[in-house]
Amino acid sequence: MTQNNYFSLKFEKDKLIYLDQTKLPLEENYIETEDYNRIAEGIERLEIRGAPLIGVAAAYALALSVKNVKKDLTPVFDEAYNRLRVTRPTAVNLFWAIDELKKVFEANRNADNVYKTLLDHAKEIHKKDEDYCTQMGKNGLSIFKKKSVVLTHCNTGKLATGGNGTAFSVIKTAFENDLVEYVYADETRPLLQGSRLTAFELAKCGIPFSIQSDSSAAVLMKQGKINLVITGADRIALNGDAANKIGTYNLALISYHHNIPFYIAAPSTTIDRNIASGEQIEIEYRDKSELLSINESQITLSEYEAFMPAFDVTPSHLIKGIITEEGVFNFPYNFI
Amino acid sequence: MTQNNYFSLKFEKDKLIYLDQTKLPLEENYIETEDYNRIAEGIERLEIRGAPLIGVAAAYALALSVKNVKKDLTPVFDEAYNRLRVTRPTAVNLFWAIDELKKVFEANRNADNVYKTLLDHAKEIHKKDEDYCTQMGKNGLSIFKKKSVVLTHCNTGKLATGGNGTAFSVIKTAFENDLVEYVYADETRPLLQGSRLTAFELAKCGIPFSIQSDSSAAVLMKQGKINLVITGADRIALNGDAANKIGTYNLALISYHHNIPFYIAAPSTTIDRNIASGEQIEIEYRDKSELLSINESQITLSEYEAFMPAFDVTPSHLIKGIITEEGVFNFPYNFI
Repeated sequence: MTQNNYFSLKFEKDKLIYLDQTKLPLEENYIETEDYNRIAEGIERLEIRGAPLIGVAAAYALALSVKNVKKDLTPVFDEAYNRLRVTRPTAVNLFWAIDELKKVFEANRNADNVYKTLLDHAKEIHKKDEDYCTQMGKNGLSIFKKKSVVLTHCNTGKLATGGNGTAFSVIKTAFENDLVEYVYADETRPLLQGSRLTAFELAKCGIPFSIQSDSSAAVLMKQGKINLVITGADRIALNGDAANKIGTYNLALISYHHNIPFYIAAPSTTIDRNIASGEQIEIEYRDKSELLSINESQITLSEYEAFMPAFDVTPSHLIKGIITEEGVFNFPYNFI
Repeated sequence: MTQNNYFSLKFEKDKLIYLDQTKLPLEENYIETEDYNRIAEGIERLEIRGAPLIGVAAAYALALSVKNVKKDLTPVFDEAYNRLRVTRPTAVNLFWAIDELKKVFEANRNADNVYKTLLDHAKEIHKKDEDYCTQMGKNGLSIFKKKSVVLTHCNTGKLATGGNGTAFSVIKTAFENDLVEYVYADETRPLLQGSRLTAFELAKCGIPFSIQSDSSAAVLMKQGKINLVITGADRIALNGDAANKIGTYNLALISYHHNIPFYIAAPSTTIDRNIASGEQIEIEYRDKSELLSINESQITLSEYEAFMPAFDVTPSHLIKGIITEEGVFNFPYNFI
């Protein structure tokens, strides 16, 4: 791959081609498959991650599940639907995307070429996510009062979405409009999405940046180095409470204390219309090996216990604004 | 070594024997040396770390510097003094200990057996630190209102001091008095003193515990799981502002927000009588390789920039109490 030329996934010749994010930035390996189960595994292993991208990949996977099936599609489709549904519990985009395809399937299961119908719909979901990313970038310009230094957490760029990203699209668009001069990226323990993925994307885009340990962010703020903070979200309740990568709640608290505006950028598909507040969001707990070893090398004894939430919930009063493809919303939030 | 039987350093047969902390908990290797320069290197490489322990080790090193010198001791002593002085810039105990030995040296440089005189003084410093640790443990009992779940950051036990520890001694003594039931240990990025060293010590002492990423601490607090937080300190200003491992300020902020008492335990030698507030504390910045690689394995590209403060300063209003060998002090602090 040449500089600035990478993609998280694309659908070509009836196959999904995706970048294995677990090896980045040390290796850029693309995986090609037409097997929905391989894609489900890829989501579980975090080869494919980021709430919007998981939705897009799951939609393609579900379309692929019926590709070579000649008759009696329903049991195959249902098996694939159920398999994909249990890959990751927190990101709402996954459920939204496969439910969309399920509706399409149910309306067309007896029609000709169900595969093509489902695939077209998956492509629409992909295209829509791409457009949303572009629009979030444009909408986000209004939050910058001057050329800014921005702090972000986890990864929210091309690698996390079907387009240019959520928070990352806002940062990139602002950078291209001369409104961002520097980015500080939390390394984002335990899986280091910041130091591995966000750093990779910032470097590819030519945006100057540094990485810091998550617990150094408060010092940066105290030193007056940060103008605003922006992250993505995995699920947003109707009152604006937002689930995102573990450490986001912590970051929102310290931003609040230092009087630094804290924003979230996410497509409207991230808003869960079924839940009133963050208390109803199910949080995924992951295996302790992700904290106790790195690159398959043990950093401490594997027998030690660990507390392993993959996400946390930021209460909406700590969030100054939520940027979606529809605009910038401010606290108090009343999504419907 | 058998279970529960380990030491950070001891002086025996004119040699310093110390546990190489960089390999823990995967390997327990003891290093034996009579070379002050090897000890200085050991401090720089963090084989020996923890503010009080650095002071003790530096005192032994300075005594050893003149061991085999027959005449003209001053240039050798001065060289060793200057060498040790530049090993680590933040912990005040180092400067305190070598200055103490310098006074003894200056009063005795022409006497017989200067080595023995210096060594006796180094042993006194060690013994005093040990006593201080024991006393901090006893004094700390008063901060527990009930059987508690405690959160701590970095490492403050035997591995960090000449005795049972600072914050760790408080936790251990309270555990032995049935006042602590569980400990949550921040992993403490970037050098993982929590998941490697504190976990090692908690396990050796039979205290039940879990490790979590530093940025998960806010979730533990929000879930109501934490009764109090206690850490050590590397340098305390007269107004109570306290420098400690990076992440402590962040932790104090989130404790404050959740109305959870945040304590510091440190011997009175950690109080820097020359500085009025934390603004005057010099903060050590360390090499970015400590963030970008682990166990000599690259986790991201080494060319990326990183922001690398090794310590931060917690303003005293966030600290509910400071426990020294002299007692428990409360905000506002007016050390003299």
